[in-house]
Amino acid sequence: MAKESESPTSGDYFDHSASKDSGEKSPLQVPKPAAQRISLYLRYLEAQAAQGKSTISSKELGNALGLTAAQVRKDLGHFGQFGHPGVGYILTDLIPRIRKIIGTDRVWRVALVGMGNLGSALSRYKGFASRGFQITALFDQDPEVVGKEFAQGTVHSMDELEEIVQRENIELGILAVPIEAAQEVAERMSRAGIHGILNFAPKVLPELPAVRSVSVDLTIQLEQLALSISMDPPEGNKES
Amino acid sequence: MAKESESPTSGDYFDHSASKDSGEKSPLQVPKPAAQRISLYLRYLEAQAAQGKSTISSKELGNALGLTAAQVRKDLGHFGQFGHPGVGYILTDLIPRIRKIIGTDRVWRVALVGMGNLGSALSRYKGFASRGFQITALFDQDPEVVGKEFAQGTVHSMDELEEIVQRENIELGILAVPIEAAQEVAERMSRAGIHGILNFAPKVLPELPAVRSVSVDLTIQLEQLALSISMDPPEGNKES
Repeated sequence: MAKESESPTSGDYFDHSASKDSGEKSPLQVPKPAAQRISLYLRYLEAQAAQGKSTISSKELGNALGLTAAQVRKDLGHFGQFGHPGVGYILTDLIPRIRKIIGTDRVWRVALVGMGNLGSALSRYKGFASRGFQITALFDQDPEVVGKEFAQGTVHSMDELEEIVQRENIELGILAVPIEAAQEVAERMSRAGIHGILNFAPKVLPELPAVRSVSVDLTIQLEQLALSISMDPPEGNKES
Repeated sequence: MAKESESPTSGDYFDHSASKDSGEKSPLQVPKPAAQRISLYLRYLEAQAAQGKSTISSKELGNALGLTAAQVRKDLGHFGQFGHPGVGYILTDLIPRIRKIIGTDRVWRVALVGMGNLGSALSRYKGFASRGFQITALFDQDPEVVGKEFAQGTVHSMDELEEIVQRENIELGILAVPIEAAQEVAERMSRAGIHGILNFAPKVLPELPAVRSVSVDLTIQLEQLALSISMDPPEGNKES
């Protein structure tokens, strides 16, 4: 059982199409749950640094994220040697090293495809740019939407996708199109040379050449809330 | 190590404020990763049923989600006895039972608070209603936005939150307000009697009485893509 829950595929429920294609090339052996948690570690460490803290122990970090200290050490151990005995983690050391591991020590250029309500909202989402994800070009299939102006510039026609992705060195794509169009647009993104797709359409994307995709299903998070309340209803919801 | 990775708090990085408050009452002992995966199982099972399948093995289910058959059996085993030896899982049996566990065999009434770009997009997100989450009332603090019409009705003033939540039996709230307002609005939702908050503000909410919250951080998913590409760059992004 230990072996099973430690295997790199345990909990790996995101699509990682490209890794299945790449045959002999073995990705870094980091269990998916540890890889998923590293962003959460980073968020918490940044918040602590912003409050003026300079070091943190694995116990504190674990308490904050609902993990044991041992789990924290194990998770971070997959990525390198960070802790200092008797001191803990030094924030000015650990934060930039985690950013470097994730790859957000540099700017990632992103195409946003689908400028309906969701795409428009995403174009204004402040979290992306502040973490190094720069929405560089906007696309839509609808002639009524092409030419509209947003903070990131004019909405381009899908016909220009390939040319602009290559010219602007765009690596990531956000897919905010209706469900019916999702697969075709994802295929076009793959052909245009995009390496990673953040998919907002409530649809599982097929495996695509040399592209990884992560699907955002907002309903899953509501289901998590519902499940949590169903299993253990909160009591006494009144102000005392 | 097995013990650690099987503990219910391992991987529990969502906020579950209320469970910390509820003292003697012990929630169902389901490890968080298993609880998180149950929605993904349900998605896949529904897709298979829609394609006319009637049974599925734990191996097929595991293959689809990047898990071992043993992990699938263990995950589902936390919730009950579902499999039939030599047959696998019977979809018409398993799907409604999972829906019942999650609590989506019934309608959950939801308040959407914050009708800016994101709130407007969320009000049009089709995935919620089709899974039993009915956005019943809309709220905003801005007098310019109060009174606007959406498919779910008129945007109400925050002053009406408590009254409407109680009158309409609203249990869940979606928090789509700017980061500066998130904490105050979450506190008001808690006082109004909402049991669960889906938080889109890039901010960790404080513990609130008798409320569970799940935070959606869209950047984390982009970071997952970046990490995956940084660790193992896809090759040959050209069309053959």
